Amino acid sequence: MINIDQYLDQKRVEINRELDCYLPSSETGAVIEAMRYSLEAGGKRLRPILTLATAETLQGDSPRLLPLACAYEMVHTYSLIHDDLPAMDDSNLRRGKATCHLEHGEAIAILAGDALLTLAFELIADYGLRHSCPGKALLIIKNLSSASGVAGMIGGQALDLQGEKENLSLADTEKMAALKTGALIRSAVYCGAIASGAGETELKALDQYAQAIGLAFQVVDDVLDYESSPGELGKPSGVDQAKSKSTFPALMGLEQAKKRADILYDQAIEALQVIDEPTELLEAIARKLVYRSS
Amino acid sequence: MINIDQYLDQKRVEINRELDCYLPSSETGAVIEAMRYSLEAGGKRLRPILTLATAETLQGDSPRLLPLACAYEMVHTYSLIHDDLPAMDDSNLRRGKATCHLEHGEAIAILAGDALLTLAFELIADYGLRHSCPGKALLIIKNLSSASGVAGMIGGQALDLQGEKENLSLADTEKMAALKTGALIRSAVYCGAIASGAGETELKALDQYAQAIGLAFQVVDDVLDYESSPGELGKPSGVDQAKSKSTFPALMGLEQAKKRADILYDQAIEALQVIDEPTELLEAIARKLVYRSS
Repeated sequence: MINIDQYLDQKRVEINRELDCYLPSSETGAVIEAMRYSLEAGGKRLRPILTLATAETLQGDSPRLLPLACAYEMVHTYSLIHDDLPAMDDSNLRRGKATCHLEHGEAIAILAGDALLTLAFELIADYGLRHSCPGKALLIIKNLSSASGVAGMIGGQALDLQGEKENLSLADTEKMAALKTGALIRSAVYCGAIASGAGETELKALDQYAQAIGLAFQVVDDVLDYESSPGELGKPSGVDQAKSKSTFPALMGLEQAKKRADILYDQAIEALQVIDEPTELLEAIARKLVYRSS
Repeated sequence: MINIDQYLDQKRVEINRELDCYLPSSETGAVIEAMRYSLEAGGKRLRPILTLATAETLQGDSPRLLPLACAYEMVHTYSLIHDDLPAMDDSNLRRGKATCHLEHGEAIAILAGDALLTLAFELIADYGLRHSCPGKALLIIKNLSSASGVAGMIGGQALDLQGEKENLSLADTEKMAALKTGALIRSAVYCGAIASGAGETELKALDQYAQAIGLAFQVVDDVLDYESSPGELGKPSGVDQAKSKSTFPALMGLEQAKKRADILYDQAIEALQVIDEPTELLEAIARKLVYRSS
């Protein structure tokens, strides 16, 4: 039986240590300091943990994959920095701290986001060259760029902006969540799988798992935002409601939204059944993610 | 004898046609429309042309390299979009048209820049997978991400912002130009060289050439800004002076700045001498670039 809290804590330590290597505190400069500020703000490190946990499930070399895992955290953090900008969500609190643009100014925050996205691709390219697996690294870069581009995360952010002006339908809200949150989560799992030599069946099963937990993650996010106080979330709560955004609780009702998360959790577990190796680690992560309180 | 104007026109047609393929007018959506708006605004297409011309000089397969060339134009265009934002240069005119954020709103302009950067890496990864040259593609991605990241273009933009508050020295202004403009130009030449199988000697010579024309380009840009009217430039002129930015004419005097450009031109031509193949194409491009009027 896995002690999942201990596992997650351990992985966060490893990921944070690795992130530090790319932005050592000895390096100065406004942009680097802003990048470090936002990366160090913490967070769940869900995406990099999924990359590592997927690799461990497939008996892959998880420590070697740390740079790849960090690339995903950098892309995630860049998206948060840009998302929080005054022209976007105009948010002042993130991960319990002042948002990057409040702390470092808007211009530097824009550049810090750009630089984190750019650095992510450099880390993956470097990994492929160093470990003589250029083909795998290219597959990961292609998948990540597609997942975080206009057909993925950025497309989801655009839908989100649109949803602030007009109410999105439930179908559009699901699409928005699948793109804005889901696509990068799927890509993080894909990365761990490809780097560990997954076969077609495993890739497909893991993608179904990732799709389910990615959507569940957003549903739970909305539910928590609906129910919680700012102190618990580390970011302003009730924001979605105040902006009359299209959220799952608003569209389906709170109880139905919670039920939806349960069903997605079941689907995620179900998808893992075809994998030969023990999948309890990925199951435990799904459970933590769906049944969390912040 | 090359007809360089005809050559440049021809390449621009090819590049514009290729760019169209990635953002067909049939595709809708606010972000895609903003990406297309800024890409279609035209411009010299200097970076992609350098990629292609370098490949042609080394007898490489230039048409096959079009996606790589386009990736460089996308990175350049993303940097312009973000540079023009209200929090950055707050510019209203670019390539003779309203800037992206004026036309499409600030939020969409931020996302369009992000998406162009992301798409650039996707194009290169795709190229490497399609043509079974993953190692070369990874080298290009590593070089591009480094050149456009915090140790390259973004670092230069940060120095530029700093220069608006305090006057930069001539040395810092050169460093700023080398990073902000030079790094991407060098990377575009590197891309054409690596994709065409350049050897060490050629790589080094071409990099010296690119470094010289990159800096010359910025010196000439400053000189033109100092001397011209907005109609000729397609962007606001005298802006640098108005903001009392550190520019080459301001720091060295107009005549010395022009002389500096002459010397850099000579250095670029000199660097090409060790290359066995005819280099008149790259020489002609250097000449056009240094002795231009807009």
